[in-house]
Formats: sequence, structure tokens, C-alpha cells
Amino acid sequence: MSLTNVVLGEAGCDNTLFLRIDSGKSLERLLFDCGENCASTLPFAEVSNVDQLFFSHLHMDHVAGFDSFFRCTYDRLTKPNHIWGPPGTAQILQHRFQGFLWNLQGGQPGEWRVSEIHESEIRTTRFDLGEAFSVAHEESSQPHQGIVWNGAGGIVKAFTMEHKTPSIAYLVEEHLRRNVDTSKLDSLGLKPGPWLKQLKDAAPDSPPLLIDGVRHEIKSLQEALMTKSQGTATAYLTDFLLDDSAMERLAETLHGCQTIICEGQYRHADIELARKNYHMTTVQAAELARQAGADKLILFHVSDRYERAEWLEMLREAREVFPNTHYPEHWELDLLQ
Amino acid sequence: MSLTNVVLGEAGCDNTLFLRIDSGKSLERLLFDCGENCASTLPFAEVSNVDQLFFSHLHMDHVAGFDSFFRCTYDRLTKPNHIWGPPGTAQILQHRFQGFLWNLQGGQPGEWRVSEIHESEIRTTRFDLGEAFSVAHEESSQPHQGIVWNGAGGIVKAFTMEHKTPSIAYLVEEHLRRNVDTSKLDSLGLKPGPWLKQLKDAAPDSPPLLIDGVRHEIKSLQEALMTKSQGTATAYLTDFLLDDSAMERLAETLHGCQTIICEGQYRHADIELARKNYHMTTVQAAELARQAGADKLILFHVSDRYERAEWLEMLREAREVFPNTHYPEHWELDLLQ
Repeated sequence: MSLTNVVLGEAGCDNTLFLRIDSGKSLERLLFDCGENCASTLPFAEVSNVDQLFFSHLHMDHVAGFDSFFRCTYDRLTKPNHIWGPPGTAQILQHRFQGFLWNLQGGQPGEWRVSEIHESEIRTTRFDLGEAFSVAHEESSQPHQGIVWNGAGGIVKAFTMEHKTPSIAYLVEEHLRRNVDTSKLDSLGLKPGPWLKQLKDAAPDSPPLLIDGVRHEIKSLQEALMTKSQGTATAYLTDFLLDDSAMERLAETLHGCQTIICEGQYRHADIELARKNYHMTTVQAAELARQAGADKLILFHVSDRYERAEWLEMLREAREVFPNTHYPEHWELDLLQ
Repeated sequence: MSLTNVVLGEAGCDNTLFLRIDSGKSLERLLFDCGENCASTLPFAEVSNVDQLFFSHLHMDHVAGFDSFFRCTYDRLTKPNHIWGPPGTAQILQHRFQGFLWNLQGGQPGEWRVSEIHESEIRTTRFDLGEAFSVAHEESSQPHQGIVWNGAGGIVKAFTMEHKTPSIAYLVEEHLRRNVDTSKLDSLGLKPGPWLKQLKDAAPDSPPLLIDGVRHEIKSLQEALMTKSQGTATAYLTDFLLDDSAMERLAETLHGCQTIICEGQYRHADIELARKNYHMTTVQAAELARQAGADKLILFHVSDRYERAEWLEMLREAREVFPNTHYPEHWELDLLQ
């Protein structure tokens, strides 16, 4: 099992997070935001197989690369097409879907669902390629209880933050990892074999397992041999005001999250500007990582008002608060180590 | 005076034409279509100063780079913002304008005009940034008499073609060039001086010009000294059916046009596919250039169904019909010379 992240895009330009959840049995690809020249840097096989697209919000620098994604997927039938974002996302996405001439696609299959994450509910609307996306089909409204997506390998939780408009913070958690503790086999008089995998995958009420001619109840054998451990978690945080109350709330919510991927728009000397524009400084991001007890902080989405030397200084400032802070590797801005 | 063209984008990918009309007194920049990774390859100073954007039509591969252009210009006040295209363009562009969250721009100035080129009229609609582009303000409807734009350095003519949807072919012509024939000065007993520029720029009914203490009527002096010559012309042709009737009509319309920039989607062996999809082969483009008496043919927008060797073969086929045929220089596919 693994949860791997790749920040796409360059320093001072648009960015996007590409995340792969590999459960061993399933591989799921999640995209967070759609900046210009981001998804287009991935191989076609990756972009065209993105399972879920999550928007923090829909300002220009988070959505200007949507066409690159959409032209790889607009008529996709191989998996569901699903986009998430704050209130208002369905209407803006419908405009984006309709921003092309669709004279050749009448009646063609292909469905897109857009789910809006409101404070207390998730509202889903469907748009059909065969209708040139002209109709917003309201599909469902369900209570929002934190978890918005439940995949084969993990879940995504969503939290509404403030950017003078709702901006969604996301937390991706792998499912519990179930493993067989083979050191306990001897004490039970058992030998390893293909039955171990059967045991791991079986429901507790499955028929007994035959091991070396002896029947064993699944439930008791699982209790004796199997361990559960927490998977890893990654947070995607960008474009919101990190005031005291947001800091307190997020530090608690993200407790136990290994990797925090957080915007580092401003240097700390410009914290008033950050507050005014409902953005964060790199030091604020580091303070959040420290309070949440994270293992690693990756800073991205840095402002182009600064130059390379200032970006390096912004990293240094953050490391004073949270030492294991980095920029994305391909930025080659990690010269301080 | 000069009319320079640059085809943007790579072989087998989206393309766009960037054209500069330099009259000596004015510099105007025209963009034809907005493919992905096209306008974004130009320096910011060029993109942000595009005077007019002309769409042939609004299929995905001609509009997927619009965001790159628009984020450089959406709030521009330094020059008018004007987009042209076939019927339906205003609605699709309004969707594109609305494909972002505009919560910070309420009341901000910034206007966009979209002119639709119908068979016999030009319909113009205005969209305002301060209204988040939510209202389509119908502004005017004027007869379409061939010339759609009349700039400082030249004009653009538009012709509706058939691509199973209207697709517009464009012809850009520099204004007549007015020059002083200095070889005639002697016979009039005049010497060169700053007055030559005054004479060139003056309206015929301007007050007389004082040269070496002698008054000269502008009109008669202009008739005696000035020559007029045709400027150069460039055609932008893409995505339409070139059947016999279209060939005949375009060959006549483009007569005297120096440079033809034309799609070369298919190799000639696939002419039935070209006809079926309302596209052209490189040989058809060459035949048009030959019949129109052009100086040069630049082929672009070649299909990615072919590989490099086939693109070279497609160029060779075209040169058999019209020898001065090329691909854009940066494609480095001109190895036959």
C-alpha cells in the first residue's frame, strides 16, 4: 500500500496536486485543482485515468488548466467522471463544459457528475455529453459528514475554509491496513501458505478454511493472526485564511496526518498582506504542521511577486518552525539542506 | 510596412496563427484560433497586446488554449477587447468568460465584444467583467460586406466555409502603401527634406505646403510625386470542406494573396476521409495555392494519425503541385529542400 503525491507546475506558476492511492489491489488517481500547464505535464495514461478531481475553489489560477484535463476525458466511459468543489462549482463547471462547440456529439454517451460541498450537505448534479452539457440534472443531496469520497484504497475528507469565498481543504486517508502477523503462526502450529491471502481477504463469517487438512473458523483465526494499522494520510491545503480559529481547528483535524501539502504564498514579513488576501505565509504553514504533529510539510503555490532568493528565504523561515519542510523536488529550491 | 506570420504550436498538436501588421506608424497583433500551448508560447508582451482574436470555429482543438490568452487580458483597459467567430461564438465565449469564479471583480471596468460573422450580417454582443460576464448586451447588427475589421495597418475579410458547422476563412490585407517617388523631385525643381513626410501623411485638402519659401498645393503635389502600391496579403484557412465549388470560389477570392496558411490534415491517399470529415489534404491545399497564384503555401494543423515520415511525404506530395510549400520553420520538417 502506498499514497504518493506529486505537485505539478513550477514555482511562481500554477500548481496542482496529483495523488495516487495504491492499495495493492486497486490504484486510484486523484487530482486537486487544475492549474495551467499542470495536468498536461502528466503522461496521457495518468490524466485520462484520473478517478476524482477536487477543486479547492475556482479562481483562475486553479482552473485555467481544466481544458487540458477535459479533452483527455470528456467522452470517457471506462470509469465514472466526478468533480468536487465548493458551492457554485456545478454552475461554473457547466460553463466550462459548454465552452466548446459540440455539434458532432449529439446523443453520444458520457456523463459528468459535479458534487458541491456545502457546509452541511453534498449536492450532486449530472451533465450529459449527449445533451452538449446544456441541462443541469439535479441528482441528490446528502448530509455532509466529513467524508466526501470513499474509494477502494482510501477516503477523502473535506473542510470548508475562508478565502473571501468558500475554499475547500482536503484530507486523504488510506484505509486501515490489514496484515497477517506471521510470527504468531508457530504458536498455532501452522505453516505459511496460499491460505494466508485467503484469510486476509475473507469476511469473518466466511466458511471455514482448510489448512493441512484441518478446518479453521475464519473469525477466530483472523482475531489470532491479523493486525490492523492506520494507513498514511496527506492533506491538501491552499488559498484560505489561517487565523487562530482556523489554525486550532485544522491542527486538531489533521492530527496524525503524515504529509501536509500547503500553500506558501507569502513570506512572513508580508503576513498583513496574506491576511488581507486570505492567504498564508510559509511560517504559518509550518506552524500548522508543527501543531498537527505532521512528519513532513511540502510548500507549493508560492507567489510570483518574489524571486528565487526570496523563495529560498521563505523556506528557511518555515524550517525554523518545522524543520522537515520542503518545496516540490523538481523546483530545485532545496539548497539549504 | 510588413505583415509577418508565426504559426504557433507543434506538428500533430494544436496550432494557432499569430500575425503582426507593422505599418511603420502602427503595430497591430492578430491571433487566429487559440489552440492549447500556442498563445502561451509567446512573450507576455505579445499576448497581452493582441488587438483582435479571430476564431475559425470553436471545436476543442481551436479553443482549448483560450484561458492562456484570457488570463493575460481579461481586465485589459489599454485597448479594446474584441473576438470574432462564426454564429454561436458569443454564447460559447460567454460560457468561457463565466468559467471562473469572479467574486473579487464586482464593478471592475473591462469590456469584451464578441462579433459573430453570419452570412449577411455581423452581430456584436458586449460582456462586462464588472457583471462577471453574466449579461449578453446586444450591441449592433451590421451588414457583412466582406471586410470585418479595418485596422490602422490593414483589413481582415471573412468567408464562411463548411465544416459540418460554419467555419470562417480569413484574408488579411495590408492597406495600400503610399510612397513618394523621389526620382521625380528634380523635374519639379524640388529638393528632399522633412516636407516629404508631411506630404505623404497630409489629406489632399490640407493647407498648402511651404517648400524653400514657395507654396505648393498638397493635392497636385501628391498627384505628381506619390505612388500607391498594393500591400501584401495572408490567408488563414483551416477546417473546412474544399470541394470544387469551394475551390473555385476561394481561388478567385484569394487571387493576388502572397501567403496562404492552410491546414494539411490528411495525406492525399486519405482524401475520402478528408471529405467525410470536411477537412483538406495537403495536395488540395497546394492545388488551391496554385490556382490562386500565391507566392508561398505554409501547411499547418496536420493530423496526429500520421508519423513524421508521413508528414514529410505529405509535404512532398504538396510540392509536386505547388513547389513553394513549407511547414512552419520550427517544426524542422523541411528536409526535402
